[in-house]
Amino acid sequence: MLQVLTPDEVLELIRKTFVPLERTEAVPLSEALGRVLAEAVYAEEYVPDFDRSTVDGYAVRAADTFGCSDAIPAIFSVCGEVYMGKGADFDLPKEGCAYVPTGGALPRGADSAVMIEYTEDYGDGTVGILKPAAPGMNVIFRGDDVYPGKLLLPAGHVLTVPDIGALAAIGKAQIAVCPRLTVGVISTGDELVPPDETPGPGQVRDVNSPLLSALLYAHGAEVRSYGIVVDDEALLRAKTEQALRECDAVLLSGGSSVGVKDAACRIIESMGELLFHGIALKPGKPTILGRAGNKPLVGLPGHPVAAYFVSQLFVLPLLDRLSGREKPLYSVTAELSESVGANHGRAQLNACRLEHREGKVVAVPIHSKSGLITQLAGADGWFCIERDCEGLPKGAPVQVFLH
Amino acid sequence: MLQVLTPDEVLELIRKTFVPLERTEAVPLSEALGRVLAEAVYAEEYVPDFDRSTVDGYAVRAADTFGCSDAIPAIFSVCGEVYMGKGADFDLPKEGCAYVPTGGALPRGADSAVMIEYTEDYGDGTVGILKPAAPGMNVIFRGDDVYPGKLLLPAGHVLTVPDIGALAAIGKAQIAVCPRLTVGVISTGDELVPPDETPGPGQVRDVNSPLLSALLYAHGAEVRSYGIVVDDEALLRAKTEQALRECDAVLLSGGSSVGVKDAACRIIESMGELLFHGIALKPGKPTILGRAGNKPLVGLPGHPVAAYFVSQLFVLPLLDRLSGREKPLYSVTAELSESVGANHGRAQLNACRLEHREGKVVAVPIHSKSGLITQLAGADGWFCIERDCEGLPKGAPVQVFLH
Repeated sequence: MLQVLTPDEVLELIRKTFVPLERTEAVPLSEALGRVLAEAVYAEEYVPDFDRSTVDGYAVRAADTFGCSDAIPAIFSVCGEVYMGKGADFDLPKEGCAYVPTGGALPRGADSAVMIEYTEDYGDGTVGILKPAAPGMNVIFRGDDVYPGKLLLPAGHVLTVPDIGALAAIGKAQIAVCPRLTVGVISTGDELVPPDETPGPGQVRDVNSPLLSALLYAHGAEVRSYGIVVDDEALLRAKTEQALRECDAVLLSGGSSVGVKDAACRIIESMGELLFHGIALKPGKPTILGRAGNKPLVGLPGHPVAAYFVSQLFVLPLLDRLSGREKPLYSVTAELSESVGANHGRAQLNACRLEHREGKVVAVPIHSKSGLITQLAGADGWFCIERDCEGLPKGAPVQVFLH
Repeated sequence: MLQVLTPDEVLELIRKTFVPLERTEAVPLSEALGRVLAEAVYAEEYVPDFDRSTVDGYAVRAADTFGCSDAIPAIFSVCGEVYMGKGADFDLPKEGCAYVPTGGALPRGADSAVMIEYTEDYGDGTVGILKPAAPGMNVIFRGDDVYPGKLLLPAGHVLTVPDIGALAAIGKAQIAVCPRLTVGVISTGDELVPPDETPGPGQVRDVNSPLLSALLYAHGAEVRSYGIVVDDEALLRAKTEQALRECDAVLLSGGSSVGVKDAACRIIESMGELLFHGIALKPGKPTILGRAGNKPLVGLPGHPVAAYFVSQLFVLPLLDRLSGREKPLYSVTAELSESVGANHGRAQLNACRLEHREGKVVAVPIHSKSGLITQLAGADGWFCIERDCEGLPKGAPVQVFLH
C-alpha cells in the first residue's frame, strides 16, 4: 500500500530511484554561466606563465638588498627595462636591477620587486634601493595561480561568475556541461482558461503553467508546455504519453478533484511505477510521484501555492538528480516578527517577507489560505516548521529560503 | 582634491549623483522573470470571481447545520450539483444543499462547504450532514485573493517566480518593466590577449571581459564588449567616447600601471566629472568613478579578483540606481573555520567556501594573492571585515554573500 512520505523520505527516494543522465554537450564559455559541469576541469598550463611583478618598481635579487636602508641605500646598476606584454629575456646580474611595471615579467635571476616609492634614481644608470626586499616580495611566481594538472572545478559544479573568470584565465573556450533537461508541463482541469483569457462563471486562469515554467526556466531547464487538458482520462493519458516521449520529465498539475487524482494515479501506474502518493507537508500533501524508466512523472497539487512549494522542494532536486547538478541550498537566518502556529503532524511551509530592522533581518510571515497565489506576490522567501514542532514564538530564528 | 572614500561613502555618492532612467518597455509575462517593474501593479478584477469550495462535498448554509452530529445528522435535500468550470446559477433553499467539487462555484445563498467524508447519502435525494459547518468553512470567497484596486507589487520590484504566478492569476499578459541597461566593457593593457588565444612571453589572457560580461548578464544587463585596447591614451579615449555614445554605462578595466591609471583619469575628467579616485577597500583600492551626464564611467582595477569585488559592491548598485531596481541583498550567516587577520585601515573582502558541518554552516576562507582569479574557482561567496576590525577569530559569525 502506498504511504504518505515525509519530505526527507521523498528526497531519499528520489536519490535511490533516479540516476543522472549521461548526455553531455559543449558550450562556449560565454554561455556557460549557471550550467552544470559534466566533467572536472583541470588546468593544462601555468597561469601566469612567467614570474610577474605586482608593483611598479625594480626587479632585483632580494639577497642583494639585505641590510640597505634610507640612510645606506643599496646601489644597483639598471641593466634593463621590462615592457608590458613583452618577455624579459635577459639575465639579471648580481647587484643589477631592471625597471618593471605592474604585471610585467621578471628577468631571469630576479626573485622580488621593490616598489618605486622605495627607490631613488641617481640619473647615472644606477638606482638606490632604500628598503630590503624578501624573496617573493611583490611577485606572483609562474604557476602561483594554476599549474598543469591542478583541479579547478569538480564535475557537477554549477558555474558561477568567478568560475567564468577562472576558466577564461586558463583558456577554456568550450566547456563540457550537462544538457538542459526538457520538462513537460500539463495543466488539467475543466475550470481552467489560459492566463490571457477572461474567466467565465466558475472558471479561473491557469496559473500553474506560467508559474512552473518560470521556476523551471530559472533553474536552467527547457520547458515544453502542453497546455490545458480537460478532465478526461483518455485525453490526459494521450497527452502524458506524448510528453513522456518528448521530455526528460513530466509534471501534471491540477486535477484537484478526487476523480482526476485517481485518473492521474492510474495513468502514472500504467506507464511504469507509482512511487508514492502524498507528502506529509502543508501545503503540498496531494503530490504523486511515479516513473517511466528513468523519467519522473509528477502529479502536483492544483493549488498554485502548493504546486510551487512542492516544485521548489522536490521537483528541482529531482531535476538536479537527473542532470547531476550539485549545489547545496543556503538560507538566510531571520527573526520571526510574530508567533506562527503549527500543529499538523506534517511539515509546514510559510511564505514570508524579509525586512531589515535595527540591524537585524526579520521574517514577517504571510498569512494566506492555501491556493491564494497572489498572497505570495512580493514575498521574499519561505521557511519550514518541522512536523514535530507545534509552532514558533515571536523572535525565534528561522531559516528563510529565497524565492 | 580627490579623496579615497569608504564603501558606504561610495554608495551614498552613487545615490546622490545618478538618477533612474525614465525609459520603460512592455514585455510578455513569459519573459518578465527577473525584470524590474516600471510601475506598481494593481489588480483590476476579483480573483476568484466567485465563491469557491476548497473541498469535494456539499455546499450549505452553515446556520442550517448548527447542532447536528454523528448521532443526529441534519437532513438536507440535494437540490443541485455544481460542475467544474461552470457557474452555479441557482439559489440554495433553506435546508438545501448542492454537491460541489474542489474548486467549484458555490450556489447563491451557500456560505460554507462540508467535506464529503462528513456526509451520508441516503439515496433518496437527501443527505445527512454529520458535523456542523461554520460560515466560511472550506470556502474561498470572491475577491479573497485579490479585488480591483488591490496593490499587488510596487514599482522597482524585481519579479520572482511566485510573482509570475500572481500576475498570471490576475491576467496581466504584458508587463511594464524598466529597460535592460546596456553596459560597455573595455579592457586595457598591452599584456592582454583574448581568452581563446595562447599568451606569449609576458602576456596574460583578458579575464575581466568575460568575468564582467557574465556578472552584468546575470544581473539583467546587455553587455557590449569593446575588446582589448592597448595602452594608448588616444585610442582609449576614442573607444571610451564610442562606448559612451552607445551605452548607458561604461566600465574600463585594467590599466594597472600608473601611466594608464592617470590616462583613464584624464579621459574621464575630460568627458564630464571625476567623482573619486580610490576606495578604502582591499582588494579594490584603485577604482575610479566619473560621470558624463547621467552616464557612469567606472575605472576598475586590473586584477580580476579586485575588479570582480568592486563590480559586485559598487557597479551593480550603480546599475540598480539607473534601472530603478530595488532588491536588498541578503547573506548567509556562517561560522569562520579559522581566524582571519586584517589590519589595513580599509574594509577587507575575503572569498570563502561554505560547508555544512554538524548542522552548522561553516565559512572556509580562501587565501589568495590579489589577482589570482582561479583561487575563486569553486568559491561560494565572500564576507567583509570592516575597516576598524583587526581580524576575526575562529568561530566568529560572518555574513556571507553568495557568488
